[in-house]
Amino acid sequence: MIDRLIQKIEETNNPTVVGLDPRLNFIPSFIKERAYEMHGKTPEACAQAFYEFNKAIIDEVYDLVPAVKPQVAMYEQYGPVGIKAYIDTISYAKKKGLIIIGDIKRSDIASTAEAYADGHIGRVKVEDEEYEVYHEDSITLNPYLGYDSIEPYMSHCKTYDKGLFVLVKTSNPNSGEIQDLEVEGEKIYERVGRLVSKWGEEVMGKRGYSHIGAVVGATYPEQGIRLRQLMPHTFFLVPGYGAQGATAKDLRGCFDKNGLGAIVNSSRGIIAAYKLDKYKNKYSEKEFAKASREAVLDMKKDLQGV
Amino acid sequence: MIDRLIQKIEETNNPTVVGLDPRLNFIPSFIKERAYEMHGKTPEACAQAFYEFNKAIIDEVYDLVPAVKPQVAMYEQYGPVGIKAYIDTISYAKKKGLIIIGDIKRSDIASTAEAYADGHIGRVKVEDEEYEVYHEDSITLNPYLGYDSIEPYMSHCKTYDKGLFVLVKTSNPNSGEIQDLEVEGEKIYERVGRLVSKWGEEVMGKRGYSHIGAVVGATYPEQGIRLRQLMPHTFFLVPGYGAQGATAKDLRGCFDKNGLGAIVNSSRGIIAAYKLDKYKNKYSEKEFAKASREAVLDMKKDLQGV
Repeated sequence: MIDRLIQKIEETNNPTVVGLDPRLNFIPSFIKERAYEMHGKTPEACAQAFYEFNKAIIDEVYDLVPAVKPQVAMYEQYGPVGIKAYIDTISYAKKKGLIIIGDIKRSDIASTAEAYADGHIGRVKVEDEEYEVYHEDSITLNPYLGYDSIEPYMSHCKTYDKGLFVLVKTSNPNSGEIQDLEVEGEKIYERVGRLVSKWGEEVMGKRGYSHIGAVVGATYPEQGIRLRQLMPHTFFLVPGYGAQGATAKDLRGCFDKNGLGAIVNSSRGIIAAYKLDKYKNKYSEKEFAKASREAVLDMKKDLQGV
Repeated sequence: MIDRLIQKIEETNNPTVVGLDPRLNFIPSFIKERAYEMHGKTPEACAQAFYEFNKAIIDEVYDLVPAVKPQVAMYEQYGPVGIKAYIDTISYAKKKGLIIIGDIKRSDIASTAEAYADGHIGRVKVEDEEYEVYHEDSITLNPYLGYDSIEPYMSHCKTYDKGLFVLVKTSNPNSGEIQDLEVEGEKIYERVGRLVSKWGEEVMGKRGYSHIGAVVGATYPEQGIRLRQLMPHTFFLVPGYGAQGATAKDLRGCFDKNGLGAIVNSSRGIIAAYKLDKYKNKYSEKEFAKASREAVLDMKKDLQGV
C-alpha cells in the first residue's frame, strides 16, 4: 500500500488527503430534499445524501489528490444503511483510482482484531467462499493494547498489500493527558512512536517506508519534528490542518527532505468549502463540489510553499 | 445505567456477563445449513446464523444473568448485514430484560466521538426526527486520546441513563507494553485508572458507583487489586475469565466487600460450551443453548466460591 500511496503522491504532486466526513449540515439542501422525498427524514435518507455528496466531491478531486479518508463514525451512527454508504463511497473512490484510508481507529485483543482485520483489509471466509467486505487500502488503529492487538493486521498488510496508520500523537486538545506523560526519560508518544517504528520493520515497502504508518497531529508541530527524527521509515498521516487550527508551517517537520513522508488530511475545509467566506460568493450551493476542487488546489499551493 | 446494572446483579445474584461473540465455528451445523440454504455461503447467511444462535442462548440465560456483551467486531466484519444482526441481537436481549454492554472500544476526537455517542447510546437527529440506532445501555471506550474524547459520551450518560466502560488494564498478553510503563512513580494503567475515576465523579449513580466504569482484565489479578483501591467508585467490567485463562480466585480483588463492584465476562466458555469436554457428552449439538445455561450456572457457582 505504502508504495502505491507514494506513487500517487508523486503523480499528483500533492500530499493532500480529503477527509470524507459528511455531516447533515454540510450537505446542500437540494441533495437532502431529494433524499427526504425518497426516504422521509430517516437514516436511509442521510445515507443516500452522504453517498451522493461524496460522489460529487470525488468526481471533482480524484485527479488532484492521492487518497481520501472516510471517517466511519459519520456513517456508522446511522446503522446498516450508513455502513452501506461507507462501503459504497469506498468502492466509488477506488474506481476513480484513489487510495482509501478508512479512519476506524479500532483496538481490541488479537482474536477480535482478526475479525476487524478480515472485514476491513482482508477477506471474510464463509466455508469455502471468500468476501472483501469494506476493502479499504489502509485503516487507522489505536495502540493502547500493545503489539498483539496490531499483529493480526500486519499479516494482511503483506498478503493483501494493505497499510495501517497507528495513533501516536493525536490532534485533539487533551491528547497530552496520556500521550505526553513522561516515562523513563521520554514521552508516551515517543515510546509509542518507537514501538510503531519497530513493528513497521516487519512490513517494509520498497521505497524506504513501512506499510505501518503513524497518525501525528499537525496541531503539535514540535512533537511532529521529534517523531520525524525517531521514525525515519514511518509515513505520517497528519490530521489537524485547517478546521482544527494547524497551518502549512506547522507541518514542515513531518516531511522528509524529499518532501515525502507525510500526507495531510483536511475534511470540512474541503468538503464544506462552499460554506466558507472564501468560496461562498464564487460558488452556489449547487456548485459545492467545484468549491471543494478549488479548496484542494488552494491547499496544494499552501503545502507546496513549505 | 449503573444503578439498573447493580439491581439486576442483585436480582440474579450473579455478576456474570455473557459475551455474545459468535464465530462461524461456534455455530451448530443445523443453524448454519439452514442459513446457507436461504442465502448461500454469504455474509447474509452468517448474519442470520449469528442472530438465531444468539436468540437461542439469550432464551436460556436471560433469567440467570444481568447483562450480555456483544462484541461488535464479530458482526461488523460482515458489513451492513452483520451490523443489522448486532442491532437485532441487542433488541432481542433488551426485550428479555437484559442490560446491553456494546463492546465497541471506540476512540476519536470530540467532533467524531459525538457521532459514535449519538448512534450508540444517544439519538441520531434527522432534521426534526430522532432515532435510536444501536441502543446499547453502555459501551466500551479506549482512553488513549484523553478526556475530550470521552466527554461527548458523558452527557449522554446523564440524558439517556447510559454507561461507559473505559479500558484501563486489558486482558491480552501484550497489554503491559504501554499500560504498564512507569510514569511519575505509577504505572500508566494506574494513571488512567485515576483519570477514569475522576471523570466518573461527574456522572455518579445512586448506589455509590459511577456511570463510567473501567475494563480491568482478570488475567492480571495484582493490578485488579491495585485498581480496586485506586477506584472505589468505579464498577469493573472484567474480561479474561475462562478461555483467556483467569480463574475465580484471580477475580477476588476486583469486587468490593459487599460482593459488588465488578461484572465478569465469559464468551466462548458459555456460548460454545456444547463443544467443551465438560458438556459435550451431556448435550447434543441441537441442545447447544442448554449447555450454555449449565455453563452459566457453573460459572455462577464458581464465582460465588470467592
